[in-house]
Amino acid sequence: MSDINTAAVLHGPLDVRFENIKIPDLGENDVLLRMGSVGICGSDLKYWKLGKCGRFTIETPMVMGHEAAGTVVKLGTKVKNLKIGDRVAIEPGVPCRMCDLCKTGKYNLCKDIFFCATPPDDGNMCQFYKHPADFCFKLPDNMSLDDGAMLEPLAVAVYSCKRGQVQPGSRVLICGAGPVGILAMQVAKNMGAASVLLTDIDDHRLSTAKTMGADYILKVNTDDPKLLAEQITTIMGEEPNVSIECSGVDFSFRTAIHATYPGGSIVMVGRGSFDVTIPYTIAATKEVDIKGIFRYANCYPAALAYVSSGVIDVKSLISHHFSVSEVVKAFETASTPQCKAIKVMIHCEEF
Amino acid sequence: MSDINTAAVLHGPLDVRFENIKIPDLGENDVLLRMGSVGICGSDLKYWKLGKCGRFTIETPMVMGHEAAGTVVKLGTKVKNLKIGDRVAIEPGVPCRMCDLCKTGKYNLCKDIFFCATPPDDGNMCQFYKHPADFCFKLPDNMSLDDGAMLEPLAVAVYSCKRGQVQPGSRVLICGAGPVGILAMQVAKNMGAASVLLTDIDDHRLSTAKTMGADYILKVNTDDPKLLAEQITTIMGEEPNVSIECSGVDFSFRTAIHATYPGGSIVMVGRGSFDVTIPYTIAATKEVDIKGIFRYANCYPAALAYVSSGVIDVKSLISHHFSVSEVVKAFETASTPQCKAIKVMIHCEEF
Amino acid sequence: MSDINTAAVLHGPLDVRFENIKIPDLGENDVLLRMGSVGICGSDLKYWKLGKCGRFTIETPMVMGHEAAGTVVKLGTKVKNLKIGDRVAIEPGVPCRMCDLCKTGKYNLCKDIFFCATPPDDGNMCQFYKHPADFCFKLPDNMSLDDGAMLEPLAVAVYSCKRGQVQPGSRVLICGAGPVGILAMQVAKNMGAASVLLTDIDDHRLSTAKTMGADYILKVNTDDPKLLAEQITTIMGEEPNVSIECSGVDFSFRTAIHATYPGGSIVMVGRGSFDVTIPYTIAATKEVDIKGIFRYANCYPAALAYVSSGVIDVKSLISHHFSVSEVVKAFETASTPQCKAIKVMIHCEEF
Amino acid sequence: MSDINTAAVLHGPLDVRFENIKIPDLGENDVLLRMGSVGICGSDLKYWKLGKCGRFTIETPMVMGHEAAGTVVKLGTKVKNLKIGDRVAIEPGVPCRMCDLCKTGKYNLCKDIFFCATPPDDGNMCQFYKHPADFCFKLPDNMSLDDGAMLEPLAVAVYSCKRGQVQPGSRVLICGAGPVGILAMQVAKNMGAASVLLTDIDDHRLSTAKTMGADYILKVNTDDPKLLAEQITTIMGEEPNVSIECSGVDFSFRTAIHATYPGGSIVMVGRGSFDVTIPYTIAATKEVDIKGIFRYANCYPAALAYVSSGVIDVKSLISHHFSVSEVVKAFETASTPQCKAIKVMIHCEEF
Repeated sequence: MSDINTAAVLHGPLDVRFENIKIPDLGENDVLLRMGSVGICGSDLKYWKLGKCGRFTIETPMVMGHEAAGTVVKLGTKVKNLKIGDRVAIEPGVPCRMCDLCKTGKYNLCKDIFFCATPPDDGNMCQFYKHPADFCFKLPDNMSLDDGAMLEPLAVAVYSCKRGQVQPGSRVLICGAGPVGILAMQVAKNMGAASVLLTDIDDHRLSTAKTMGADYILKVNTDDPKLLAEQITTIMGEEPNVSIECSGVDFSFRTAIHATYPGGSIVMVGRGSFDVTIPYTIAATKEVDIKGIFRYANCYPAALAYVSSGVIDVKSLISHHFSVSEVVKAFETASTPQCKAIKVMIHCEEF
Repeated sequence: MSDINTAAVLHGPLDVRFENIKIPDLGENDVLLRMGSVGICGSDLKYWKLGKCGRFTIETPMVMGHEAAGTVVKLGTKVKNLKIGDRVAIEPGVPCRMCDLCKTGKYNLCKDIFFCATPPDDGNMCQFYKHPADFCFKLPDNMSLDDGAMLEPLAVAVYSCKRGQVQPGSRVLICGAGPVGILAMQVAKNMGAASVLLTDIDDHRLSTAKTMGADYILKVNTDDPKLLAEQITTIMGEEPNVSIECSGVDFSFRTAIHATYPGGSIVMVGRGSFDVTIPYTIAATKEVDIKGIFRYANCYPAALAYVSSGVIDVKSLISHHFSVSEVVKAFETASTPQCKAIKVMIHCEEF
Repeated sequence: MSDINTAAVLHGPLDVRFENIKIPDLGENDVLLRMGSVGICGSDLKYWKLGKCGRFTIETPMVMGHEAAGTVVKLGTKVKNLKIGDRVAIEPGVPCRMCDLCKTGKYNLCKDIFFCATPPDDGNMCQFYKHPADFCFKLPDNMSLDDGAMLEPLAVAVYSCKRGQVQPGSRVLICGAGPVGILAMQVAKNMGAASVLLTDIDDHRLSTAKTMGADYILKVNTDDPKLLAEQITTIMGEEPNVSIECSGVDFSFRTAIHATYPGGSIVMVGRGSFDVTIPYTIAATKEVDIKGIFRYANCYPAALAYVSSGVIDVKSLISHHFSVSEVVKAFETASTPQCKAIKVMIHCEEF
Repeated sequence: MSDINTAAVLHGPLDVRFENIKIPDLGENDVLLRMGSVGICGSDLKYWKLGKCGRFTIETPMVMGHEAAGTVVKLGTKVKNLKIGDRVAIEPGVPCRMCDLCKTGKYNLCKDIFFCATPPDDGNMCQFYKHPADFCFKLPDNMSLDDGAMLEPLAVAVYSCKRGQVQPGSRVLICGAGPVGILAMQVAKNMGAASVLLTDIDDHRLSTAKTMGADYILKVNTDDPKLLAEQITTIMGEEPNVSIECSGVDFSFRTAIHATYPGGSIVMVGRGSFDVTIPYTIAATKEVDIKGIFRYANCYPAALAYVSSGVIDVKSLISHHFSVSEVVKAFETASTPQCKAIKVMIHCEEF
């Protein structure tokens, strides 16, 4: 193992540089990973274009990448669950383990969580990266590093469906047919949903969703949320019990409130405007619970099982592959609609 | 028993008339009640003043009253749980019992529910009123008909706290120190809440809340929801886990979203504007669940037990008493701030 | 429609008679059904052989049959959800709709429930049978009456998995590879279980389970529950989170307690001895929740959706078909191991 | 601070010795405590008398004590939540923080948990004791170190009631009126239970329970569990929804199964025989969930709030006080029925 550790470092909007960073020292429960596949997600694009995403802004140079998988090359002294050579998916958030949120199982809400490629925390688009062994999940032989990287958005999808309490017989509405929406559709069906309808404004995304198993697709053709909700109900036969908003578009969220069956749930996966106007009285009198999600907790094992068993197809969502040396081209592709990118995967082996 | 059945009938805004209505025939599972106490609630005031409330409008004359208690004077042929002379609290909503919402325990959301004094359904501010025996709850000797009528707002309070998942150690914020807010405070404390803070703009209400057991009261003195949320956190030591919005004021709802601890709940009890603008990103990233309530389901037995055991004080909330013949005066009192009414009770025995 | 209504009536052990019973009058919310397919279940066999099952004994003649489907031939005056000619699956339990168990969604536990072919309530192995319309579920065109009858055991399977809280990633142990065990396996996998292992003592049942999708099968080869539990853990890689006991064998129940992962659940589907000795300390210190089931509540819609969408295969479980005139032969077949019956279906159309 | 650290060390049955042990080094998140009050619990008595308790046996000398409170005398470098001089209650179990049980909020079930005075882990009946700061809970000024030590059994009581899902209106049966039973009664009432009945065979314990707020007490006067269950139902008016078994007597557990209302819960707090025979069919057909508890998780904050607010009285349960030098006398008192000990408290300040 050389002393070189090249990383893709973001210094500000559109300013990615390849730099040699220190190979980190290991704590007793850590492993050192030779990085492999790293997917590009919407938040990565925002950091690359704008230097910020939501409430986070890049103030010091930051290694990019958080949807990732790699290979174990060194073990901390107390690590037992992994061995050198194991290929692993990396759950990118590491909480404090001591606050009441950590202790009650809501570690994703920990106020002191470390999260890859969220300022000021560095990500793992580099050669060598250190991570606690208990947040690394060993990939079985039938899963590739690409599959491992895809567990990150799949974990979001699993968490969304769990928060929405999808159950056998549920009718599920998913707003937005991007990678997370399509994965959520697959998860919902594999939690027993009777039917899933996806909405979007993009024909390509909708046809991909249909190909991958959606019962119904609906191209949004109105700016009246109540009218769209009625179309949804007509297609599904009855209002959806669970609505999963993945588009980050305010209109979709309002539509979901109008559409959802009394006593049902709406899950806020997408992020759009900071302030959103909702039909409050409708939500309240129908007792439609509105539930946010912040990343996920305890979802990697289920995501891994879904992929390993062949039940959920993540490969078909990877539309483009790039070497890490082409990272700028990768970001451009991911942010150019004409490229029809669904998921763009970057390969760090080529560093 | 005479053939006369005088009722207080609302024909339109500010148009209450005393009329003789038919004494209803009983179904086999019904009881006939000689009505006693009937409380006035915010929705009653809206019907009286405006002829409408939320999505409901008075289109045909409607008997008023839904917070009520009376005495059994006649039994349907199959009634076993009650006998003549029993004094009962009346749960005013009677669902279809056949739809999936009824079958899953969410009967308050039944699309075909009958509800007293909600157009077009008649209420029970009259002499004789028919109701299914299973929605009548026998009052023990230590409870008056006034206590019985108060179970209706108390059921709202119980349901709010259950929906908010108040549990031992919870910190609870209640926005609005009206009757439901004060009752919710008492319920929260008797579900194990470690501390309860009430906000309001009215000193009299706040001091009543304090007298009746609130740990903290806070007079709203800013129009910045984030600032108010910080004041709340400072007073409580940490953010509230559960926020119960009883004021129907948009600002309070936004405040609750800023104030609530990650992973907590906000319950929408009050009703204000149809559309409300919320800090969506804050709610989503903290995973603060926003839960509406529509009346209540399965809460009368607990409400009755709370009052019968002396744990919750409803009597102190009844600020004014009127004979039914003074119903207009009663409504005027309830809607005049200077009267400092908390709960106004009408007595139908005097019909 | 003739006035004849032939029924298979059980008078005592091994004493089935064909009798002409009255065509029932309809209540306003009832439908009259021309009966089609009726499956034979373990409880039917017990009544037929012993005249009793569990705490129920046949004291007066009883029409048999409760896993059933038929065709609507007459409508009560208020029925809206069905029309004449509709083919329906019959949920055989009809609760009082008025007690607190009914009102809280646990209607299967209603103390006054009517249940087909449970003394003294008559079943539906006859020509014409009356049932409340809201407990009849319309079959789509792609489902047969046989499929409809199979929804009864499938509802048990759905309910078992819901009570056991199977979720994405769960490891599930099912003791007993009879019809309910095999259906529970299919449901568990379609609720996201990562792996399902079935145990039995019968090779034929185990190979059927394997063919229909079980990840693992294990023939019981020891009388030491702890040893068997260790075998299960070895095969599955880790202890199962959820164990569903469908065999009615005490040993299996004890095995499940030893086998289940801390914090998991065991569902008691099978019924064996009245008293069972359990390793109490093991259950308590692992916090393995032991949950009984009594039939099911609110599971027919999900069961129907599973079959209609093709996700769950019920047809392959029907091993034998008989005309109702051959009912004795059908019972003999179902109770003779050499016949390798899984599910025996009786056809009432031939009455 | 001297270099002496005297500890009460158990070498085997009835063999307690005072020994000087090393003052432990602190990790960065630890605090060093000068020990104050340490309560004696049933498991302590078993170790003292028999050298073992349940599946644990003393194989090497072990410092006793786990219901404890002390004062912070030294801080690890990263400790922020405490300062020197703070008096704290000690939650005695420290989990691995890395396994899936820890991550899902069930840290009490962690297979690698450290727990004071459970072989081979040392307890805190000594002068100086090290503990992670996040498992130390600062006592407010109105709470004594005795109160702090009492949080341990109170945490068991809180956890029992949470596991049993006590809610407003619940009827609660508690078998066994020892310290945990009486504390569980107080917690149940302060979670909204409508009524609580305690059973025991000891008049003194029952009258203590009554004095401290039990609605009903019942001296066990039969060996027929079904008969006792009927007596309980008669007294309570209806079957209890939640039964909390604190006696560790098999008969009580069987009684609880007979007594509990359909759809209710039984919590296994007490530990008696390894194997227990239960009326399986009764439990299954009533869907009475049987739930074990292993200590508690996330209950100290609620327990502290209950005591600090004055809602729950722990002081009245402390029947005897001893200096640590009298530890043998303390154990003898706790295990001699004639002493009528409820809770015996040992004071380590006098070391």
